[in-house]
Amino acid sequence: MINVPKEPIRPNIGNIKPYVSGKPIEEAERELRISGVIKLASNENPLGPSPKALEAVNKYSKDICLYPDQNCYELNRLLAEKLDMTPENIAIGNGSDELMLLIALAYISAGDEVLISLNTFSTYEMVSRLMEASITRINLKNYAYDLEQMAKVSSPKTKLIFVCNPNNPTGTMNTKKEMDYLLSKIPQNTILVIDEAYGEYVESPDYPDSIDYVKKNKNVIVLRTFSKIYGLAGLRIGYGIARPDIIKYLNLVRLPFSVNRLGQIAASASLSDTNHIEKSKRNNSDGKAYLYNELEKLGLSFVRTEANFIFINLNNDADTAFMELMRRGVIVRPLTSFGMPGSIRVTIGTPEQNKKFVSALTEVIKK
Amino acid sequence: MINVPKEPIRPNIGNIKPYVSGKPIEEAERELRISGVIKLASNENPLGPSPKALEAVNKYSKDICLYPDQNCYELNRLLAEKLDMTPENIAIGNGSDELMLLIALAYISAGDEVLISLNTFSTYEMVSRLMEASITRINLKNYAYDLEQMAKVSSPKTKLIFVCNPNNPTGTMNTKKEMDYLLSKIPQNTILVIDEAYGEYVESPDYPDSIDYVKKNKNVIVLRTFSKIYGLAGLRIGYGIARPDIIKYLNLVRLPFSVNRLGQIAASASLSDTNHIEKSKRNNSDGKAYLYNELEKLGLSFVRTEANFIFINLNNDADTAFMELMRRGVIVRPLTSFGMPGSIRVTIGTPEQNKKFVSALTEVIKK
Repeated sequence: MINVPKEPIRPNIGNIKPYVSGKPIEEAERELRISGVIKLASNENPLGPSPKALEAVNKYSKDICLYPDQNCYELNRLLAEKLDMTPENIAIGNGSDELMLLIALAYISAGDEVLISLNTFSTYEMVSRLMEASITRINLKNYAYDLEQMAKVSSPKTKLIFVCNPNNPTGTMNTKKEMDYLLSKIPQNTILVIDEAYGEYVESPDYPDSIDYVKKNKNVIVLRTFSKIYGLAGLRIGYGIARPDIIKYLNLVRLPFSVNRLGQIAASASLSDTNHIEKSKRNNSDGKAYLYNELEKLGLSFVRTEANFIFINLNNDADTAFMELMRRGVIVRPLTSFGMPGSIRVTIGTPEQNKKFVSALTEVIKK
Repeated sequence: MINVPKEPIRPNIGNIKPYVSGKPIEEAERELRISGVIKLASNENPLGPSPKALEAVNKYSKDICLYPDQNCYELNRLLAEKLDMTPENIAIGNGSDELMLLIALAYISAGDEVLISLNTFSTYEMVSRLMEASITRINLKNYAYDLEQMAKVSSPKTKLIFVCNPNNPTGTMNTKKEMDYLLSKIPQNTILVIDEAYGEYVESPDYPDSIDYVKKNKNVIVLRTFSKIYGLAGLRIGYGIARPDIIKYLNLVRLPFSVNRLGQIAASASLSDTNHIEKSKRNNSDGKAYLYNELEKLGLSFVRTEANFIFINLNNDADTAFMELMRRGVIVRPLTSFGMPGSIRVTIGTPEQNKKFVSALTEVIKK
């Protein structure tokens, strides 16, 4: 037996829960020795990336030997133009999760309070733990973020509040009125982080115009991503929108080359492809209507969504349902790791994928 | 005047110096309104990526809408095989700089001592500052890391020691004997991080076999990258090799999708292309001999290199020389940001690039 000198890690690190990601298709096929599996587990765009992005990636792939532009000059400028902001209002990251980490690195000192909801995207908690925040968890109310309660619980000790809007994994949305209320009640030095990863899918007219908060110089950081409707999850591009003084610090704590070259190029090319975005929205809207109808026919309880996925309450062991669906060639997300072990989340796919899911689900629940 | 609520950042953040990267070709051409500029400033592989990597990227670019494999299953397995280690010995990151950040996140508590050399890659200091380390800086000795001094200064308070071998930007190497000595002297709980970004270029037989330290269960983390000889700087793939207990924690503090999909695929494809690596080594070796000869003819003082770049002491303002060279179409790296304002670092390029550099340099120094 060798005497291994175990090096003590930082005290909070051991408590971090590893992220449970959607099962990759190759892994499912390898394990089950089946083929033709479809994945409706990670809220990717079922129509794929914009053809313009694909064209740009193939055109510039020969340059992968060159470091990416540290400042993401082109993408930053294009985003600023599109959002009617200045380049100094925008920080680009290796997915919007990197921006969550940067926010934590820049702003959370050990012991600072962070307000997080239960049953939401887990990275808010991970990055807060990394920086030894004191985490306060708020319950969902009717499957939605309870902003009234968040306002009530916030105090001058509250450094950050994370709000996922629409919420992953329930698909619920907070209205402009609710968000305005929260912002009016939280202490002046609290930063509100609004994660709009699914914002482009929202159909409700009551969705807050969060950029307007930034324009009004509020302590707000809006997070968006190219992983969802833009169909670039594999290339990891997210961005944050905030006042220049905040953006400056996020860029200061970012590793200089964290945003890869092809990701920058693909995102830049995607931005102008409004046709692809419109098609993706339409596919989602149609798929939503189809799935609502089928789920109702099956008598299942689900939550109406403003995103590209549907939360289904099976009132049954989600991990078992997940396995049963996977055996029938459909990967969904069991919500055990989200603290909701009786529910699953299914991405709205193409019409064929939705049909395959409904057929598999029908078999599983009637079993 | 609007009353902007300035949100206090963490105390150490304001002191972080922004990274000064090699000037991108497009930026130089835009600013100077010239074309045909070559860049010998970021130690990229002048022969480009492996054709196998390029083929793989183009083949799988259609999958950029899918999240990357969180566990980098394929690349991890291939690396383990190549290095004769287990997959549990290897953590893959978004460039080796991400691994530096992960090491800091996992191991540095505020006030922990970190030993860093002066005149070296700046990210060691950046990540240490981020975690509020107490940083002790050691001078280079004859342009090389002074491992004897590092051993002498280390104490039980020393959490981490960073060694860049060969050193960027001087190209000097520490021998197996020196590294063995350092390891024999440092406290049992200190972790030695050996950054071998340029390791594949080393020609000296005295280069330490650092993997052997890991196999002997030492507190050693070896860092390597696909950005240099593998020609994949744009796709950001680095890896760390260490005992499984260390690797486990590095993966625990890593954001799940930090390593992009095309990077994983390109790196996997590159690994088997030994032909491209051999060609790249030969080009470097030949270019080195050519440049030594030309620099001697010019009477310039330079440091013999074990890497793919040469440190040249101009005894003159490096920023001015940089500008003068750029006007002549050659971007090099002035070493002002490395704390060596009288020197430049030039990447060994293709024969044509080296010739262009020598011709520009001759004009500049004879001016």
